[in-house]
Amino acid sequence: MSFQSFYQRALTLFKAYPSTSKLLVLSTFSGGSVLVYSDLNTAVTPKDGQHKKKVVVLGSGWSGYSFLSYLNNPNYDVQVVSPRNFFLFTPLLPSVTNGTVEARSIVEPIRGLMRKKGFGFTEAECVNIDATNKKIHCRSKDSKSLKGTSEFDMDYDILVIAVGAKPNTFNTPGVEEHAFFLKEAEDALKIRQSVIDCFERASLPDLTEEERKKILHFVVVGGGPTGVEFSAELHDFLVEDVAKIYPKVQEFTRITLLEAGDHILNMFDKRITAFAEEKFQRDGIDLKTKSMVVGVTADEISTKERGTGKVVSEPYGMVVWSTGIGLRPFIRDFMQQIGQEKRRVLATDEWLRVEGCDGVYALGDTATINQRKVMEDIDAIFTKADKEKTGTLNKKEFNGVVKDICQRYPQVELYLKKKKLRNIANLLKSANGDDTEINIEKFKQALAEVDTQMKNLPATAQVASQQGKYLAKCFNRMEKCEKRPEGPLRFRGEGRHRFQPFRYRHFGSFAPLGGEQTAAELPGDWVSIGHSSQWLWYSVYASKLVSWRTRTLVISDWARRFIFGRDSSSI
Amino acid sequence: MSFQSFYQRALTLFKAYPSTSKLLVLSTFSGGSVLVYSDLNTAVTPKDGQHKKKVVVLGSGWSGYSFLSYLNNPNYDVQVVSPRNFFLFTPLLPSVTNGTVEARSIVEPIRGLMRKKGFGFTEAECVNIDATNKKIHCRSKDSKSLKGTSEFDMDYDILVIAVGAKPNTFNTPGVEEHAFFLKEAEDALKIRQSVIDCFERASLPDLTEEERKKILHFVVVGGGPTGVEFSAELHDFLVEDVAKIYPKVQEFTRITLLEAGDHILNMFDKRITAFAEEKFQRDGIDLKTKSMVVGVTADEISTKERGTGKVVSEPYGMVVWSTGIGLRPFIRDFMQQIGQEKRRVLATDEWLRVEGCDGVYALGDTATINQRKVMEDIDAIFTKADKEKTGTLNKKEFNGVVKDICQRYPQVELYLKKKKLRNIANLLKSANGDDTEINIEKFKQALAEVDTQMKNLPATAQVASQQGKYLAKCFNRMEKCEKRPEGPLRFRGEGRHRFQPFRYRHFGSFAPLGGEQTAAELPGDWVSIGHSSQWLWYSVYASKLVSWRTRTLVISDWARRFIFGRDSSSI
Repeated sequence: MSFQSFYQRALTLFKAYPSTSKLLVLSTFSGGSVLVYSDLNTAVTPKDGQHKKKVVVLGSGWSGYSFLSYLNNPNYDVQVVSPRNFFLFTPLLPSVTNGTVEARSIVEPIRGLMRKKGFGFTEAECVNIDATNKKIHCRSKDSKSLKGTSEFDMDYDILVIAVGAKPNTFNTPGVEEHAFFLKEAEDALKIRQSVIDCFERASLPDLTEEERKKILHFVVVGGGPTGVEFSAELHDFLVEDVAKIYPKVQEFTRITLLEAGDHILNMFDKRITAFAEEKFQRDGIDLKTKSMVVGVTADEISTKERGTGKVVSEPYGMVVWSTGIGLRPFIRDFMQQIGQEKRRVLATDEWLRVEGCDGVYALGDTATINQRKVMEDIDAIFTKADKEKTGTLNKKEFNGVVKDICQRYPQVELYLKKKKLRNIANLLKSANGDDTEINIEKFKQALAEVDTQMKNLPATAQVASQQGKYLAKCFNRMEKCEKRPEGPLRFRGEGRHRFQPFRYRHFGSFAPLGGEQTAAELPGDWVSIGHSSQWLWYSVYASKLVSWRTRTLVISDWARRFIFGRDSSSI
Repeated sequence: MSFQSFYQRALTLFKAYPSTSKLLVLSTFSGGSVLVYSDLNTAVTPKDGQHKKKVVVLGSGWSGYSFLSYLNNPNYDVQVVSPRNFFLFTPLLPSVTNGTVEARSIVEPIRGLMRKKGFGFTEAECVNIDATNKKIHCRSKDSKSLKGTSEFDMDYDILVIAVGAKPNTFNTPGVEEHAFFLKEAEDALKIRQSVIDCFERASLPDLTEEERKKILHFVVVGGGPTGVEFSAELHDFLVEDVAKIYPKVQEFTRITLLEAGDHILNMFDKRITAFAEEKFQRDGIDLKTKSMVVGVTADEISTKERGTGKVVSEPYGMVVWSTGIGLRPFIRDFMQQIGQEKRRVLATDEWLRVEGCDGVYALGDTATINQRKVMEDIDAIFTKADKEKTGTLNKKEFNGVVKDICQRYPQVELYLKKKKLRNIANLLKSANGDDTEINIEKFKQALAEVDTQMKNLPATAQVASQQGKYLAKCFNRMEKCEKRPEGPLRFRGEGRHRFQPFRYRHFGSFAPLGGEQTAAELPGDWVSIGHSSQWLWYSVYASKLVSWRTRTLVISDWARRFIFGRDSSSI
């Protein structure tokens, strides 16, 4: 922004809000003195007359909230745009569906964090990114009291996309209209109310047994952790509470869990899968694997059996869809703009920068890291390493780059771990024998299979929050690292990368299976199933909750449930 | 029900639900033996082959819940029909609007009580009463998962109408569409969300000062306890929380309280009214008395000033309508059926029996007691009292009826209290001097002004719950009192009334005024205003909550608010 335009803008603002002039700062510019007005969303700083870089963050979920919590750089003017003014602790969402935990206990209002950090917040949905003009177009939420929506543009210098994903129905007919999703706080509340509605409806007089059975047939689509946990919670609710409060209709209830794959929880260790499937069978949950949903009507759900191709339709009372990850429409548009239309999700590099678009970062479920293959860069790596230009690498030359290779290409380490090799030197030794010099062919041969270890990170809260934290730490050290880069060597360019690339550390995952039992998969192939892991689950989730407020609330909700049982009021 | 039809019904039911035959009782009828099936809503008792009287209770609010809690007569088959399967502690509803208390903390699921008492519950709305055939027609609630509604009939022997009232818009145009009400739990939740929506909307960029002012103009219609408390709660929220979380728009907020009468809280002592009006003025709440709302559009609310007739329109962000009591449409229809079409609400006698309709009781806000005037019965009273048929009453004769008069006509006692007379004898003395005999003329003269003390009971939770308890106690002693009536003498008939008529005892009322101050009006003209009454309020409401569950939840909500402040998440 030129001085002229800045001056104009300040003046216009001053005219527009004369009464709000809380902050008038007299500052000196190049010999003259002007009034600088700073209020509502203006991105100017009076300090040394420089324009602060405006960072616009889209989203207040795991990645966005974690980014904002760790961001701590006074040189940025941070504006957050999100359609919900709170952070939602999603892992406890299935617990909300049956009233084990209250929805309000697992949300953290974002305004508190904004106030602490001095960031701006706007409750609106981004509907378009104009990457050319560095501008986003937003629309406010619809609300009962305020008719219509308000639309506005917002400029950015840096854009951080952390909008997460939406459920993907794979265009299955009827799903959008008839099924419940389990992604937002409102979804969980709707499910909770609907479960109670089903029991009340089934308790009406003058119904046939078939009608009661239909109404109390709960179908869960998707055998991932969310679907499994929801089924388990629902089963607990039936056994622990419904038996008492709706004794006359309890016998008509049925839970069906549909999974298109061969097994539920297929991202977990096989022991966990087997245990879960067996437990569900024991509990009477009707588990149907290899079943693909092909359509949902108001009364029936149709599934196709993989293999036989047989289509079966069954009456149901309620369907919960918890499978698939879909992109929001404006992200699709944006991908088209930047030439990523063929990708499934937004592709970023290892530094979470969106490929093909300057100044835009993406993290969490909305993006995936397009990891660089070692084999693509192998010639560049060799040339860079071969400082003496001999055509071969000696030990010293090799040692000069080995650390950078490992940092730049995380798959190398994974490969070494898999092959149970201590370090990359051992790998070369296995290819080159005891020869101290290595030529390009041998080098390629040694690293040939390294890229097989490349894996997309799962779309989990754990990945998203680590990415948020990582990016915030980069932003915090931006000025320092611009001057003194601390990343690995640039093999295809000059100098070093500013930062270390993002690296994910898996701390384990949980799959609550109901009946106070949880399956836990911890790093180092450690698997634990049962009541002890349930307590581990309680303590890990209690400690992971973002504030003392949510922690207190969730723990007191758990206590309430132990004492008073779940609440069956249909509000 | 004849034996034949009963037998048929039992058989049909048995065929319809063979698998649910949990309770099969072999019983003997007039020489033969039949299977009697008892399940789902059937009103048969195997004990001595007699048909239990089926009591259908409509509603689960103050009067209904209190009736059900105290009802304890095994000779009734009790079926409850209500569109909500919970009891709502309405006095704390204004606290829900700003998150001081959670909605779930002030509801008590009704299924718990039903289970304890062995009553049946059906979540449905009564849409028609057919008094001739002793039948009600019901419709189930609409729900997202279950398309359509289910309709059914239900027979009754005794009907207890406890459906409360709905807000009355007095046909003011636009109110139904644009205003919020404050009657149900959902209403309070909607208001809570909408208040936050307004603040988020007002915080959007690119708005003019006028737009922000419009969005943050909260209008409350009705200066009764609910409207006043809501205004006070909203003001507290603005001062205590909004100042912190929306500092940039706080200055644009305004609360207007509109009251058609001369004063707010006009049912309270004048000292309370004066204090409240002064406090609101100090707080900056814009109090407009003598203002009648004549119309609401999407953007403006129009009021007419009583006296001048001037109509003023003002832009607003949100309107809360908390005035007027209206009847539900099916009650209106019912009144037409029984010849009460000209009445404002259902009229009952002092025993809560609906006038002109056998076997139907009504209590709470939906009904009013049509108190019998002494002067209407004065001749009958005199004749009854004059046992020796002398045309005058001597002391003995008079003493023989004085207790019955006081019991039958509660206004007598109120009149004596007002006149500061110890008993009715003193009243007669003032009319008759020292004469020991009294004739009809003197008798009439003495009691002439007694009926001026007749007042309709206010439509409050206190009245409703006392009525519920009263009626339950009558029902509990029904058999006993049929044989040995315990009510006052029937002046216009033979014998005694079965029960004492309902008598209301006022235990005081509260009007929370915000800022931890409450006005309390207690029996005996005791008025207390300030922080001490706030603590009285806390303790009375905590003790009045219907269960330990709600008590614990509300107290922990209060504690949460003290520690963490109110939650500003828009869910």
